[in-house]
Amino acid sequence: MSLDAVLARIDADLPEALERLMALLRIPSISTDPAYRGDCAKAADWLVEDLQGLGFAAASRPTPGHPMVVGHGGAGGRHLLFYGHYDVQPVDPLDLWARDPFDPAIEETAKGKVIRARGSSDDKGQLMTFLEACRAWKAVHGTLPCKLTIFLEGEEESGSPSLIPFMKENAGELRADLALICDTGLFEDAVPAITTMLRGLCKAEFTVRAASRDLHSGMYGGLARNPIHVLTRLLSGLHDVNGRVQVPGFYDDVAELPDALRQQWQALAFDHAKYLGDVGLSQPAGEVDRTPLEMIWSRPTAEVNGIWGGYTGAGFKTVLPGEAHAKVSFRLVSKQDPEKILKSFRKWAEAQIPADCEIIWHDGIEGSPASVMEIDDPAFEAARQALTDEWGRSAAFVGSGGSIPIAGYFKTVLGMDAMLIGFGRDDDQIHSPNEKYDLDCFHKGIRSWARVLARLA
Amino acid sequence: MSLDAVLARIDADLPEALERLMALLRIPSISTDPAYRGDCAKAADWLVEDLQGLGFAAASRPTPGHPMVVGHGGAGGRHLLFYGHYDVQPVDPLDLWARDPFDPAIEETAKGKVIRARGSSDDKGQLMTFLEACRAWKAVHGTLPCKLTIFLEGEEESGSPSLIPFMKENAGELRADLALICDTGLFEDAVPAITTMLRGLCKAEFTVRAASRDLHSGMYGGLARNPIHVLTRLLSGLHDVNGRVQVPGFYDDVAELPDALRQQWQALAFDHAKYLGDVGLSQPAGEVDRTPLEMIWSRPTAEVNGIWGGYTGAGFKTVLPGEAHAKVSFRLVSKQDPEKILKSFRKWAEAQIPADCEIIWHDGIEGSPASVMEIDDPAFEAARQALTDEWGRSAAFVGSGGSIPIAGYFKTVLGMDAMLIGFGRDDDQIHSPNEKYDLDCFHKGIRSWARVLARLA
Repeated sequence: MSLDAVLARIDADLPEALERLMALLRIPSISTDPAYRGDCAKAADWLVEDLQGLGFAAASRPTPGHPMVVGHGGAGGRHLLFYGHYDVQPVDPLDLWARDPFDPAIEETAKGKVIRARGSSDDKGQLMTFLEACRAWKAVHGTLPCKLTIFLEGEEESGSPSLIPFMKENAGELRADLALICDTGLFEDAVPAITTMLRGLCKAEFTVRAASRDLHSGMYGGLARNPIHVLTRLLSGLHDVNGRVQVPGFYDDVAELPDALRQQWQALAFDHAKYLGDVGLSQPAGEVDRTPLEMIWSRPTAEVNGIWGGYTGAGFKTVLPGEAHAKVSFRLVSKQDPEKILKSFRKWAEAQIPADCEIIWHDGIEGSPASVMEIDDPAFEAARQALTDEWGRSAAFVGSGGSIPIAGYFKTVLGMDAMLIGFGRDDDQIHSPNEKYDLDCFHKGIRSWARVLARLA
Repeated sequence: MSLDAVLARIDADLPEALERLMALLRIPSISTDPAYRGDCAKAADWLVEDLQGLGFAAASRPTPGHPMVVGHGGAGGRHLLFYGHYDVQPVDPLDLWARDPFDPAIEETAKGKVIRARGSSDDKGQLMTFLEACRAWKAVHGTLPCKLTIFLEGEEESGSPSLIPFMKENAGELRADLALICDTGLFEDAVPAITTMLRGLCKAEFTVRAASRDLHSGMYGGLARNPIHVLTRLLSGLHDVNGRVQVPGFYDDVAELPDALRQQWQALAFDHAKYLGDVGLSQPAGEVDRTPLEMIWSRPTAEVNGIWGGYTGAGFKTVLPGEAHAKVSFRLVSKQDPEKILKSFRKWAEAQIPADCEIIWHDGIEGSPASVMEIDDPAFEAARQALTDEWGRSAAFVGSGGSIPIAGYFKTVLGMDAMLIGFGRDDDQIHSPNEKYDLDCFHKGIRSWARVLARLA
């Protein structure tokens, strides 16, 4: 049977597949930091060359930000588009990494072999599972399994500013029957999963300004307004004691979970004690009347992701700073509108600023709403069966607390449904020091895509 | 008359005095940052050489931190000790400086010529006023005016860890009839002043720790504890809406201002609108029932001098950090005990920390109490008259919001009284970018010390 031949080829080619992944991981394609602009272009070029080697007509396509990689190949059958991203998160704090984040290595751990590097799981390792499945298919059959479009982004970790314009300008070229996205994970490290609900995201960065310059706390302390005090008072009011966000209207467009999905989630028996215990915590700290799975999959949040002001170096400086700063983000669910939420947040914050202070907003109104997939499409059940075959555990339809705006854009911009299948584990430490991707996930991930392609093509 | 000859000599020698000050200002003696250790030693050596040129038996004396400069010279009359410090504050944020902070220059401004550099006012420019007065005296008389001990510290801006041990070990050598300290300012830029009340200071740096590593806010947001939220809630409770510090027992040892001093201060007619207006503010932001002069001279404070946590670089990172940090300082008055205040603060903070969080304290219990001078000593009236002669305005006994712990140590360790005379102006931007010292203050400061020495010697 031809699928078996493809799977055998994948097994035999694994060492070479790892070498290819390592080469991609060595490129520090941090999209949010302008210092790495050249490296983002280099990662895109590397992927173009790899796709061309697989027979794709591929190119690095310029944008005002980092390039998009687009490749077309194969013929016949269902037209599938595959999406991944080649950019990665920043690596600070660097001193918490056990090795150079861009010098990947295979490490033995108590739980098996892992590929250690920034981007190994999010998302270079994951996107390469699909390319390697195509490579094996081509080696066995001489052709790709069906008409395929590969679409790889370089701005996913920095808000995707070029994505919607690029999709709109190239809508005819990009539109396919179904999109496949590989940027999610297994459920609890073992159960294969298709993600059908994703939270949205919107972000605000701002400065509270008081005095026109930094002041000596001996000369002004007790008399002059301290903007750190203003900022801490403001942010401390983001939640009430029950964990409810206090921005007016925040919950207006939040729907309750449908009973059917609630029952499925309960059946998953999420081990929140382990999930929290893995990161040194023991107690859910969100809304007091919600289950842990609801907190991360179907409830909106407000989180301060960064705060700074005054003297933060070694030693002490008795300064009253002129400014204090914060980065705040909101995870969105259901029909919450990013623009409406950000406007309400700005209004709420500005209403609390005392005399002699002002808020300066550093970004425009931007964000992405939550996505909910149409799981009645038979392709979802076919893919669920393919994953079950590979992993020996019944695959589940799950939610995700993270934001993958592309899933929503495929629907709103191109009118396509999207299927999110990924092989990350909860302990991959994505966005954190010492990110890794299990060798087992990489290997079975490639095999999973071969099985999914066999059923969907 | 010999004083006139000394004053004439000072006027004639001003260009050379400025060259000497510039040379000292070029040495980046930032004491709080270990990277500048060698520069602190270099500044000490420069001063030793200058003192030796004036006939002092001077040496750079090692300590576990930065060296002390001690010089002995002159004979007869009242034995006076002069204190200043050669170390300076850090210079960040560097991008707010109009020039290299360690490349001093004379600049023309609307209000006259200024010497622009880090340390120009705090305290290199001030300490050099005394040395230049000695130089002129020696040039005219061939001798110093009386028995003099020069004592220059290199750790004033970083908590003076070596000061008390050094004073105790060398008490017999350092003890004099009276200490003179030049590290204060004029009153409202024009009225010569002798500072007779100084606030004390104690400091705390701490970390709020939650998860054992940074988390992805998509995977954990809404479920896991965010230590920035814990920190902002904690710090927002430092003051109530009336500006009163909420740490239990904080005001227990705070005395009300004596009526006589309150009347003197009212007579000064402090222009707080101008004082605040100069830094872009318009309203007193401290305790609602206190006058602005009380707020900075005779009331204690709690100020957050630095806060940081999460991602603070360019762009955005949707991280839930594992830790958040703050530096908090307290200005102390009357009989407030630094140790008692810090212990109460720690207890208050720890009582508010939720499950899964802990506070790590980064410093020991340290600090200095407030100082109140004995102004009945006739030397104070003599010095007041000397200053009045030079500046043409009646000199005032004033308070200071800043902490100059040395004044208290001279009393407690050596049993000496101290007289604080300085020539800084409120707009000198000490501890801030673009620090300056008015050329006029430097010149009249030298002349003032000549007059004071003539009366006290």
